[in-house]
Amino acid sequence: MLSSFLEIIVVYVKREQSDENREALLATASRLFRERGIDGVGVAEIAREAGLTHGALYAHFRSKDDLATEAFSQGLALSREAFRGKAARRKHSVSGYLDYLLSPLRRDQPGVGCPMTASASEIGRHGKGISARFAKGFQDKASAFETVLDEAIPGDERRRLAMTIVAAEIGAMAVARAVAKSDPSLSDEILKAVKAVLLKASETA
Amino acid sequence: MLSSFLEIIVVYVKREQSDENREALLATASRLFRERGIDGVGVAEIAREAGLTHGALYAHFRSKDDLATEAFSQGLALSREAFRGKAARRKHSVSGYLDYLLSPLRRDQPGVGCPMTASASEIGRHGKGISARFAKGFQDKASAFETVLDEAIPGDERRRLAMTIVAAEIGAMAVARAVAKSDPSLSDEILKAVKAVLLKASETA
Repeated sequence: MLSSFLEIIVVYVKREQSDENREALLATASRLFRERGIDGVGVAEIAREAGLTHGALYAHFRSKDDLATEAFSQGLALSREAFRGKAARRKHSVSGYLDYLLSPLRRDQPGVGCPMTASASEIGRHGKGISARFAKGFQDKASAFETVLDEAIPGDERRRLAMTIVAAEIGAMAVARAVAKSDPSLSDEILKAVKAVLLKASETA
Repeated sequence: MLSSFLEIIVVYVKREQSDENREALLATASRLFRERGIDGVGVAEIAREAGLTHGALYAHFRSKDDLATEAFSQGLALSREAFRGKAARRKHSVSGYLDYLLSPLRRDQPGVGCPMTASASEIGRHGKGISARFAKGFQDKASAFETVLDEAIPGDERRRLAMTIVAAEIGAMAVARAVAKSDPSLSDEILKAVKAVLLKASETA
């Protein structure tokens, strides 16, 4: 009786530990992929940074592609939560959303920002799984913008506008990061210009 | 007399061969980096595909970063030429430029398209040299749009609009490629939506 009770506890503790290891691997992978690119970091390094062995990683994920897909998905969920929390505090508006998404602070911290923005041009080279997560993330973000665009704008146009704002925001942030090392003032200028133009487009639509 | 004449020929032939090798390395690297990402392909493979040895590559380029910078620069120059050639045949206009830049054909052939678009989110992780080439490429493309925007738009606004169009085009193409494997119709929809919105923004500015 006591021994089977202890067995249950051991199984429970092991499962808890296993869940924690999985979470640690996902969080580490998600940050490193955003900071250094999916092809820029190997599984051995991810396991090491998460304080685990290479073997432990493969107990949780079939392949690097599988890990990248799950890490991307987890990063998206956290990024969506952060966006909704912060954007909500700044009031829901196109301007409030863009202030948050196109800030220099966000540009300088790719490891904690949106994984779509961090890895935009890389995803097309990976599997169908990560492509599907990206598509979902893109649709979610576009829907968030649709809800804050002027209701007087016809539905079709509102959707086109929302998709354009998200694509432009992703592009602007990638470009701002790309030029930041050589021309920081151009980088700032791009963020401001894109914000101003998108805001105007959303008002004159 | 004859021997020194032959010596000159040998030097000349060797130099020609060396220039050709360099060109082959740049063309191969430029295509592979666009297709598979800068971190997705190694120097050994680039040398092999160019029909040369690893050592021959290092005779021309100090490091992978040096090769990536030069290849990026060469890809930009070819892409700019192609853009001007094709865009010119379709008449110089925002609409003509966007038709060319945001076509599904271009989405499906990253290896021959614009290296800024192919590698947007990767450049920020690399050196200052490639960042400077990106900044120049971005400014050149924005200037091309500035020249076709309505002259009635004030200069400041024209510049902001041109920068936004280029950032949005880069973002739209990255996103369209990212979702293409899982949702081809969303991918097409994004290209069309971004084109329509940018065109309208450039007309109502």
